[in-house]
Amino acid sequence: LNSAIKSGKVRAPTHIISTISDDRGEEPCYAGVPMSTIVEKGMGVGDVISLLWFKRSLPRYCTQFIEICVMLCADHGPCVSGAHNTIVTARAGKDLVSSLVSGLLTIGPRFGGAVDDAARYFKDAYDRKLSPYEFVEGMKKKGIRVPGIGHRIKRGDNRDKRVELLQLFARTHFPSTKYMEYAVEVETYTLSKANNLVMNVDGAIGTLFLDLLAGSGMFSKQEIDEIVSIGYLNGLFVLARSIGLIGHTFDQKRLKQPLYRHPWEDVLYTK
Amino acid sequence: LNSAIKSGKVRAPTHIISTISDDRGEEPCYAGVPMSTIVEKGMGVGDVISLLWFKRSLPRYCTQFIEICVMLCADHGPCVSGAHNTIVTARAGKDLVSSLVSGLLTIGPRFGGAVDDAARYFKDAYDRKLSPYEFVEGMKKKGIRVPGIGHRIKRGDNRDKRVELLQLFARTHFPSTKYMEYAVEVETYTLSKANNLVMNVDGAIGTLFLDLLAGSGMFSKQEIDEIVSIGYLNGLFVLARSIGLIGHTFDQKRLKQPLYRHPWEDVLYTK
Amino acid sequence: LNSAIKSGKVRAPTHIISTISDDRGEEPCYAGVPMSTIVEKGMGVGDVISLLWFKRSLPRYCTQFIEICVMLCADHGPCVSGAHNTIVTARAGKDLVSSLVSGLLTIGPRFGGAVDDAARYFKDAYDRKLSPYEFVEGMKKKGIRVPGIGHRIKRGDNRDKRVELLQLFARTHFPSTKYMEYAVEVETYTLSKANNLVMNVDGAIGTLFLDLLAGSGMFSKQEIDEIVSIGYLNGLFVLARSIGLIGHTFDQKRLKQPLYRHPWEDVLYTK
Amino acid sequence: LNSAIKSGKVRAPTHIISTISDDRGEEPCYAGVPMSTIVEKGMGVGDVISLLWFKRSLPRYCTQFIEICVMLCADHGPCVSGAHNTIVTARAGKDLVSSLVSGLLTIGPRFGGAVDDAARYFKDAYDRKLSPYEFVEGMKKKGIRVPGIGHRIKRGDNRDKRVELLQLFARTHFPSTKYMEYAVEVETYTLSKANNLVMNVDGAIGTLFLDLLAGSGMFSKQEIDEIVSIGYLNGLFVLARSIGLIGHTFDQKRLKQPLYRHPWEDVLYTK
Ligand SMILES: CC(C)(COP(=O)(O)OP(=O)(O)OC[C@H]1O[C@@H](n2cnc3c(N)ncnc32)[C@H](O)[C@@H]1OP(=O)(O)O)[C@@H](O)C(=O)NCCC(=O)NCCS
Ligand SMILES: CC(C)(COP(=O)(O)OP(=O)(O)OC[C@H]1O[C@@H](n2cnc3c(N)ncnc32)[C@H](O)[C@@H]1OP(=O)(O)O)[C@@H](O)C(=O)NCCC(=O)NCCS
Ligand SMILES: CC(C)(COP(=O)(O)OP(=O)(O)OC[C@H]1O[C@@H](n2cnc3c(N)ncnc32)[C@H](O)[C@@H]1OP(=O)(O)O)[C@@H](O)C(=O)NCCC(=O)NCCS
Ligand SMILES: CC(C)(COP(=O)(O)OP(=O)(O)OC[C@H]1O[C@@H](n2cnc3c(N)ncnc32)[C@H](O)[C@@H]1OP(=O)(O)O)[C@@H](O)C(=O)NCCC(=O)NCCS
Repeated sequence: LNSAIKSGKVRAPTHIISTISDDRGEEPCYAGVPMSTIVEKGMGVGDVISLLWFKRSLPRYCTQFIEICVMLCADHGPCVSGAHNTIVTARAGKDLVSSLVSGLLTIGPRFGGAVDDAARYFKDAYDRKLSPYEFVEGMKKKGIRVPGIGHRIKRGDNRDKRVELLQLFARTHFPSTKYMEYAVEVETYTLSKANNLVMNVDGAIGTLFLDLLAGSGMFSKQEIDEIVSIGYLNGLFVLARSIGLIGHTFDQKRLKQPLYRHPWEDVLYTK
Repeated sequence: LNSAIKSGKVRAPTHIISTISDDRGEEPCYAGVPMSTIVEKGMGVGDVISLLWFKRSLPRYCTQFIEICVMLCADHGPCVSGAHNTIVTARAGKDLVSSLVSGLLTIGPRFGGAVDDAARYFKDAYDRKLSPYEFVEGMKKKGIRVPGIGHRIKRGDNRDKRVELLQLFARTHFPSTKYMEYAVEVETYTLSKANNLVMNVDGAIGTLFLDLLAGSGMFSKQEIDEIVSIGYLNGLFVLARSIGLIGHTFDQKRLKQPLYRHPWEDVLYTK
Repeated sequence: LNSAIKSGKVRAPTHIISTISDDRGEEPCYAGVPMSTIVEKGMGVGDVISLLWFKRSLPRYCTQFIEICVMLCADHGPCVSGAHNTIVTARAGKDLVSSLVSGLLTIGPRFGGAVDDAARYFKDAYDRKLSPYEFVEGMKKKGIRVPGIGHRIKRGDNRDKRVELLQLFARTHFPSTKYMEYAVEVETYTLSKANNLVMNVDGAIGTLFLDLLAGSGMFSKQEIDEIVSIGYLNGLFVLARSIGLIGHTFDQKRLKQPLYRHPWEDVLYTK
Repeated sequence: LNSAIKSGKVRAPTHIISTISDDRGEEPCYAGVPMSTIVEKGMGVGDVISLLWFKRSLPRYCTQFIEICVMLCADHGPCVSGAHNTIVTARAGKDLVSSLVSGLLTIGPRFGGAVDDAARYFKDAYDRKLSPYEFVEGMKKKGIRVPGIGHRIKRGDNRDKRVELLQLFARTHFPSTKYMEYAVEVETYTLSKANNLVMNVDGAIGTLFLDLLAGSGMFSKQEIDEIVSIGYLNGLFVLARSIGLIGHTFDQKRLKQPLYRHPWEDVLYTK
């Protein structure tokens, strides 16, 4: 074999396969589109995400929706785990990448992870044609909170404005919002149980992304399943929150904050 | 003191200071702007970066320029250090955050770091009114390559299209492009030395960002120095490249690639 | 409540609980043992691991076994994912911590993760009194390879010397080696199926750690279950391999290796 | 050239060079020593560090000293930056590697970094034959605190026991302790200025490591300079502290601690 490769009869198998971009030509291409085309056509950040993550040019309303999600998830103050660890690392005098990364590593099941789960559970429930009652009570039996439902402060009579804005955008521009409307039905049911069980931002993004994938007509059923199972929405959150974490790093460096040490009095030393 | 704090006469000093965002109210604010305003006003990703990193609303041409930089730096193929480490980690079966982070950690002096250095050195040279000759030969004496100058493939008679697009955008929209024009003069001089010493993308972004900061009239001289010394442009590269690294992670997971092991034959084992 | 706290009648609840070490006194303590005692008593690295991870002083044969595991897992050459990413990051000119961390992030299900799984599956099988036949065939039905069994090069008539050394150490010093002897029985069965299905180092460490925990008489059944489910053995691998990854970082810096770029020819660019 | 390589006349240049370990044979070797030899000879963790970092077998007193350093630096309670970030990440439900890494990334100039600096400055001062007065006052003029000197709690009449233990060990086993004795002279001078300016653990480890390198007779002058400039002692701290950070991760998982959110009241939100 080896000599066949050398003699040119057989191509040496490569160790790496890559399909999203190509840097070998005159200028880099994202999913086949040269970078100059991207600039000349006035594409936006959402289009680039679309090319590099989904390997296709999505319609403008889709890439605009992606951009709105990035903006809404860009930051949530200095107290959440991610921002906090980034702040502590920046105050230890570390560089930008280390500070960012120390914060990113807290993103997971408990921080930032509800969007993908919302998409997964609502997709499953809708596709299996569960009634809101069956879905919610079924989750309760399994001891799982419905991801995308519930809010610390917001109530049935005082909705989250961001959810309303997302819904408004989608109802205006999306060909179909069936998954999100299903979530509204679920919300109607959960609100009948407790006043704080409103649809939250994670629920709105998660279900609207299902509508985006299904409604665009550009993804096969199998591709949608793959996207939901791999968890692209977590990628959206991670990318978005990087903007905030980088911002917090700059903020601490501007403020010349000293090394953080957690106060002894706030720790219970026990056995 | 402690009892004075408790009795409410004195505010307890806090351990953390933060100035870029606020999550205490009804909805999160970025630099004082509520998230719903951001969506309603049709702001873009560049505006959110502007609010969270620069704590002010920059004019549209500035935020558009920021978005173009993000798009141009989003990916550069699977072979560069960052993408490579991300691919290896994804193929080890690790989650998205770990894969992204393993790649981000390679960003630094040799990979992705030339933009800030270009800004620093060209700012210093221009502000000190060095002629291109003095600047370039001075760098040579110090044994430092001029960051932002030089390209593996591009030549004086075959410029990088992205550089041209950036220049075109800036000359059309920026009130002043003095730093970039200075870089063009420097390029004219370096091209007289060798045909590959053209202005590269890093040089174009670095000097045009100086023009953005100075030309917008929204930053004091001291603030500009701070931004250049902290290294905001590295943040731009890090954020941008995250799009590509996340894309490479999804790509490998879609392709179900197995554990990567570097081939023995490609390693020189020595003493 | 708040006023009760202020008046001193109730202690303010702390936000953090910690039980392994205490830095408030004259000198830090690990699980109650002052650091000077540790040095004076001639304790070793294994004893410190024992104090900080298990919160108790394990007998000498246990801490010696822990140290042997650390030594055996410290490195496995430059080609495995972890070392490779560390080398790439070091060659990008990044600092020691970034280089180490970029490599550590590849440790997981496919690289370094078999020890905990070996412990989990063999514990479950032994405790449920499965015969080797039932265990191995049951795993096959579930489509899971028996972790801790199998080797690329070693064969039934050419065992791995490290496995033999671990077995020798344990049979000499451990009060009981029942889990490991069970693994030997399993190995006898798998060897009857194929000549490469020998017990590997991961299998030896995983099952002997079960013997250590059960045989020392210092852990309750519930504590052992917790240790196995949390996955302490992965910690052992992570700590051990850090020695190698730090070594590879120093190595590349000594060798002054330039930026690594994966060769284009080794990548299959496709759709 | 390419065809010459193919025809076997020229060896293809490899892309990676590695010198510390070899995994190609029957069993992995560390700096030429097979792993079975390491176990059979009863080597310890310090010997493995010695092989993989220094590529030679150091005498027993050296590897024992390395082990003592690892033990002394293994943990320093839950309040320091590293442990804190690890705790926050573990409480976000992330895996062991992510939790460890989030904490490791805080290690740097302000946290854990004084040992290498102590070695650097004391080596320079001693080698240039500066008197303690010249050294300390010279540093003062440059506005740099002498690394390795100073303690929050300890005083001239209440030394740090760990420093005393390190000194005792070295004076008993090292052929020469000239760098450390020089640090004692420096301490005598600084104590005449202020009672808290005692030699601290970082100073003791940093200068004694210089004595280890110089006294062992196994390193050339150039090799010692390289070791000090690359910063091996930071590696020692990073490795050691990993034991503690892994311990804190296990601790939080055992305690089933929920997501950490920094208290709003402890943050000053300002402009
Ligand atoms: C968002 C959330 C953390 C808010 O929680 P909270 O205001 O602290 O609510 P509580 O935890 O006090 O819950 C109050 C009651 O509502 C129930 N509940 C809360 N969220 C629920 C949900 N998503 N589905 C079903 N029941 C829920 C709780 O079980 C609890 O009932 P109980 O007292 O009988 O046990 C919570 O609703 C939740 O976990 N939602 C799911 C995850 C999610 O979408 N997260 C995104 C956050 S932006
Ligand atoms: C981009 C770059 C790596 C391309 O390098 P290259 O095509 O491999 O060029 P070489 O390294 O072969 O250099 C060829 C000659 O040009 C010189 N040269 C290259 N870049 C130079 C620069 N930026 N300033 C001054 N001289 C430079 C080299 O010193 C060399 O001269 P020599 O043979 O007398 O030593 C290189 O130009 C560079 O380092 N530029 C500065 C950093 C930078 O802007 N990086 C951004 C990359 S997008
Ligand atoms: C170590 C290991 C990767 C070596 O694999 P390998 O030499 O490449 O063996 P192969 O993958 O070619 O397998 C050859 C056959 O043995 C079987 N086999 C290999 N390991 C097995 C195991 N642990 N249990 C059951 N069957 C196994 C395979 O299914 C295969 O049978 P098939 O051809 O009918 O499918 C493999 O044995 C394994 O995955 N073991 C379990 C994980 C483990 O312990 N890893 C630690 C590595 S140090
Ligand atoms: C360890 C250390 C942080 C303790 O600091 P501290 O007890 O808070 O001491 P302070 O910062 O209050 O300093 C008190 C005075 O001593 C001086 N001082 C403290 N450490 C000094 C040092 N290493 N060299 C010279 N002067 C020193 C300070 O400048 C200060 O003088 P000033 O009031 O005139 O400015 C400090 O001594 C230090 O930075 N040492 C060098 C770094 C080091 O070795 N760190 C290892 C820590 S284990």
